[in-house]
Amino acid sequence: MQNKAEQRISYREEIKLFDCTIRDGGLMNDHKFEDETVRAVYQACIAGGVDYMEIGYINSRRLFDPKDNGPWKFSGEDDVRRIVGDNDTDLKISVMSDAEKSDYKTDILPAEQSVIDMVRIATYIHQIPLALDMIQDSHDKGYETCVNIMAVSTVPEDELDAALELLKTSPVGAVYVVDSFGSLYSEQIQDLVDKFKGSVGASGKQIGVHMHNNRQLAFANTIEGLIRGANFLDASLAGLGRGAGNCQMELLLSFLHNPKFRLRPLLDCIQNHIEPMREELMWGFDYPYMLTGILNQHPRTGMAFNASDQRGNIVDFYDSLEEND
Amino acid sequence: MQNKAEQRISYREEIKLFDCTIRDGGLMNDHKFEDETVRAVYQACIAGGVDYMEIGYINSRRLFDPKDNGPWKFSGEDDVRRIVGDNDTDLKISVMSDAEKSDYKTDILPAEQSVIDMVRIATYIHQIPLALDMIQDSHDKGYETCVNIMAVSTVPEDELDAALELLKTSPVGAVYVVDSFGSLYSEQIQDLVDKFKGSVGASGKQIGVHMHNNRQLAFANTIEGLIRGANFLDASLAGLGRGAGNCQMELLLSFLHNPKFRLRPLLDCIQNHIEPMREELMWGFDYPYMLTGILNQHPRTGMAFNASDQRGNIVDFYDSLEEND
Repeated sequence: MQNKAEQRISYREEIKLFDCTIRDGGLMNDHKFEDETVRAVYQACIAGGVDYMEIGYINSRRLFDPKDNGPWKFSGEDDVRRIVGDNDTDLKISVMSDAEKSDYKTDILPAEQSVIDMVRIATYIHQIPLALDMIQDSHDKGYETCVNIMAVSTVPEDELDAALELLKTSPVGAVYVVDSFGSLYSEQIQDLVDKFKGSVGASGKQIGVHMHNNRQLAFANTIEGLIRGANFLDASLAGLGRGAGNCQMELLLSFLHNPKFRLRPLLDCIQNHIEPMREELMWGFDYPYMLTGILNQHPRTGMAFNASDQRGNIVDFYDSLEEND
Repeated sequence: MQNKAEQRISYREEIKLFDCTIRDGGLMNDHKFEDETVRAVYQACIAGGVDYMEIGYINSRRLFDPKDNGPWKFSGEDDVRRIVGDNDTDLKISVMSDAEKSDYKTDILPAEQSVIDMVRIATYIHQIPLALDMIQDSHDKGYETCVNIMAVSTVPEDELDAALELLKTSPVGAVYVVDSFGSLYSEQIQDLVDKFKGSVGASGKQIGVHMHNNRQLAFANTIEGLIRGANFLDASLAGLGRGAGNCQMELLLSFLHNPKFRLRPLLDCIQNHIEPMREELMWGFDYPYMLTGILNQHPRTGMAFNASDQRGNIVDFYDSLEEND
């Protein structure tokens, strides 16, 4: 057993870095990234030693109009191959399939016909039966699978326990603790990862963490998760993601010491492709997201406020939240 | 004994919030704040329920030219009183006196002639004997005292132990864990606060934490410190402070639940007085500070880089750090 300092300067081979830059960032621009940007992230992930890149959603063209959404809302096989070719690399490609928003039975091809490696199912607690069918479908088609139980900060504990019991018997490979609202503290992450490990973890499944930065705790909470045994760690370049964004890949990678990881290619991509989008996409820590995080609310009111001409008037936003209570 | 959830929704009366906005922020503008700004911070601290406001340094006019530095480099009694009058409030006023940079024997008046309540001594490990004399001087003059052992992330453990032994016998009221370079992780904060508590804490002194945000861990580390028993918590409005800045007061205050704390007046001051300075002062998380934090270095190279026309060229900055090694 290593002591804490030995663990800190060493590394755990099982840890997988999971890039969400394009997938989560797509929530800030209706998934309309230039191919050049997606390709730059792909190449940065390869050069940086990242394990998975989630390239987009694989959601329904019936429910979402391709005229209003960029290709990474649907992640068609042709679109993905236009970026990654046959992906003859160590980087695995993931897509996210949302419960009730995905025509998964038809849109997800058999794995041998696809360059995609992993299907990640995103589910709210009330959609767990559907999520189980989606997991089984992707598993049977030959994919790795994982599942995000979203907005865990709002889920009653007995329902969460019940969901984990159901997931135990599914073929899912990894189960994620997802702080959708960026409202959880490190102690709560510790308790949740312990709970997940004791349940689905004891059945041999990996635990993942996906943290948002509303209270500037995304990186700190990701560290807490990994200390407690989570091996699937989500992050994105420059934290690009919805609202306050995600754990920053460059911070997380610098904390890990697996010699396969490289910081410089990530910085290069951030400087030349990600930061130039900041003014338009406006992700990252900001007071409205801090306030929704404090109240354990979805950041949508903060996003609407920041997109309005009231941006910066944080006292008014604070007052509006108090009135809504 | 409360469980963790009881502690989280409750509060600890002993916790003191210590505002460093003007003092630490002065490192970004040579202490040249408008009186209106300093007064706004003072009034926000009062309205927000903050316990201490550190209004500036009390350093030597012999060593630092008043032509090059604003009033908050020296915090003369007249300057302080111009802002706070007789300070007939619950907010205590603090000044920071730097070892080897302060004419403390002459510049610090007897407490009964001053509106200042607290003198904080900032010392590097090799200046501890001087710091002890400064503590004694301010204590004898009638002030509360505390001491910041700076850059603790670079101090050999045996020297730190020896310094704490010396401080035990001094009249200092509080001893701070100071992560000057923003390079420490939560586990290290836990170990340091435990060490301080076991040493000077056992002699009845309070423990404080002063965290920098180079790796976006200032708030998380402050929480870890308070969980381990630190009761003096430094923070600043919008994180204003050197380089990546400090723990953000608005985040910290929202974590604490003492009903005397109020968030809205802080947001008002941030919106109307602090954020308008951001473009000129350029504090806050940024890649150069992240990189110096990773390397456990002083942020001065990052500050010089960000002040140059190379700002934003983070790959070049990364390369320059590698070359210097």
